[in-house]
Amino acid sequence: MMNETGYDVAILGATGAVGTRILAQLEQSTIPVKSLKLLASVRSAGQTRQFRGQDIVVEEATPDSFDGVDLVLASAGGSLAGKLLPEAVKRGAVAVDNSSRWRMDPNVPLVVPEVNPEALASHQGIIANPNCSTIQMVVALEPLRKAYGLNQVIVSTYQAASGAGQRAWDELLHQAQQHLDGETETAEILPTKGDKKHFPLVFNLLPQIDVFQDDGYSFEEQKMMQETKKILFGDPKSSEVKVTATAVRVPVPIGHGESVYVSVADESATREDVQHILASAPGVILEDDPANQVYPQPINAVGKRETFVGRVRADNENPGSFNLWVVSDNLLKGAAWNTVQIAEELVKRDLIHSQAK
Amino acid sequence: MMNETGYDVAILGATGAVGTRILAQLEQSTIPVKSLKLLASVRSAGQTRQFRGQDIVVEEATPDSFDGVDLVLASAGGSLAGKLLPEAVKRGAVAVDNSSRWRMDPNVPLVVPEVNPEALASHQGIIANPNCSTIQMVVALEPLRKAYGLNQVIVSTYQAASGAGQRAWDELLHQAQQHLDGETETAEILPTKGDKKHFPLVFNLLPQIDVFQDDGYSFEEQKMMQETKKILFGDPKSSEVKVTATAVRVPVPIGHGESVYVSVADESATREDVQHILASAPGVILEDDPANQVYPQPINAVGKRETFVGRVRADNENPGSFNLWVVSDNLLKGAAWNTVQIAEELVKRDLIHSQAK
Repeated sequence: MMNETGYDVAILGATGAVGTRILAQLEQSTIPVKSLKLLASVRSAGQTRQFRGQDIVVEEATPDSFDGVDLVLASAGGSLAGKLLPEAVKRGAVAVDNSSRWRMDPNVPLVVPEVNPEALASHQGIIANPNCSTIQMVVALEPLRKAYGLNQVIVSTYQAASGAGQRAWDELLHQAQQHLDGETETAEILPTKGDKKHFPLVFNLLPQIDVFQDDGYSFEEQKMMQETKKILFGDPKSSEVKVTATAVRVPVPIGHGESVYVSVADESATREDVQHILASAPGVILEDDPANQVYPQPINAVGKRETFVGRVRADNENPGSFNLWVVSDNLLKGAAWNTVQIAEELVKRDLIHSQAK
Repeated sequence: MMNETGYDVAILGATGAVGTRILAQLEQSTIPVKSLKLLASVRSAGQTRQFRGQDIVVEEATPDSFDGVDLVLASAGGSLAGKLLPEAVKRGAVAVDNSSRWRMDPNVPLVVPEVNPEALASHQGIIANPNCSTIQMVVALEPLRKAYGLNQVIVSTYQAASGAGQRAWDELLHQAQQHLDGETETAEILPTKGDKKHFPLVFNLLPQIDVFQDDGYSFEEQKMMQETKKILFGDPKSSEVKVTATAVRVPVPIGHGESVYVSVADESATREDVQHILASAPGVILEDDPANQVYPQPINAVGKRETFVGRVRADNENPGSFNLWVVSDNLLKGAAWNTVQIAEELVKRDLIHSQAK
């Protein structure tokens, strides 16, 4: 059932791995939805999806699709986001975008609701959802920043195939079948659609996510370094914390792992303090009981909204430095849930200027 | 064909994942073998293996098996190594051991031939082969230590199932089949035989290798920290370098990956310098051409003796600090090849006092 009052909402890229999850998260959310449009490429137009008991036909996204829309939840890739979201804003909508297209724009807030919801206040129509790996890391870092300040972050990621989309996820499972059938694995998408060569991911590790820059870092690694600074300190070039990243794709369908080394600004911080702070941090579930083999695992995080943190260890040679193991569902907190959660914050703060109101 | 002169050799644990590879590496080695005994548990006794065209029947290992043996290459687990290797030494043999049993013994050299072959000179009968993850890391670190000195190492591992033995490797493949058949994955070995609970590794990440200590580190992580110091600086508690580690099991059959962050003692070191040094380092193959998507991958390292290093990047916020991606065949350089390579060094340095000579 749609609400009689509320927002006219559109989901852009409604049929993808993230889009279908935005639909499900929206269904469970507190946002009053008066009407819902499902928008996608012409290829998916005509398909039907259910929302709160009602059938909705997917339409092809055009600029005019956004007439009368208050809120756009977008997961349609960078070039479409670049083209269509300004059209939506021109027509009076507020758009939350999952692509990397708008994240570094100084006029666009980059938001993780547990960390910097106050950044929403200055939005000019578009709000960017950060990169999946960045989101789960800053959820774990923010409570430590707040308690101690941060000096340095060194992260190595273990990223799931679904981060590269539904087709990459399908490719991984297909490769597993090929391997067990004694066939040669074929690869057409991974490590990244945007590059020339493709390699099997099944039973392998691919230290490439997105394309490479001249300094040797991948765009994914650069995103983690810049977005972390923008979210935590308001500036992608902030010198308040040093961040370096290594991003690796692993043969896991859903659920990113991260080995995070963090040096806080207070050398007296202990392992127990850090565990205590994380145990009560918003959006975090501390799973840290080594004696009983309790630690975060991707298969346990699938379908959950929270970020799971465990394996907290003090670097005994560097006071104030800690190793953490951080896992989250990259399609939910890393994408769909964070997007809907931003929308809930926009509603709560009355930052969607509904045209129907 | 056996040599008419040479060494009487025994392989202890000859039928395991590492033992079968020690046999193959010995076959290809320069070591003159006069006779070869294959020793294993009573379960494997009676099986036949080929060596240089000759059939050899596997015998049950007992203390008396080592009568007349000059050189023992052992991969039979810690408790058997603790019991049997002193018996071998008592009978005049030199033993190279793959287990962790002897590695921290101050009287036992812990050797990676590219790094510290000179440590062999002081052996008292037993030489320890380091942990697989440690070996490939120190092969990549030693040339940087030599050129610059080292301040700090922070490593996150991506370790293959075969590091936990043939049965763990089989379990991973079986779980993959179960997953594709829509069955629930069963786990009896991973993450580690020695602990109470078992979890599926396929399409998952297990941040546990070996059992945990009170400080939260796993034994695998402790091994990496202590062994690295002993190999590079002669003392497992050396303060000449700081080392911290996070060890994670990934769904890969063979080939460990490592994300290594290293701070060298010379802040003027550049990315190009580090690449240049690694390109000519012994045992290292530099695979570092991001523009052409050339970087180390486990599937390409399988069956190779070398350690592959790539993704060299300078931490632009910390002069003298670099990110590396290091991959090697954990069963070869991480175990069987390093063992046979130590034996070759012992021969070359005339440190096996053959009783037949």
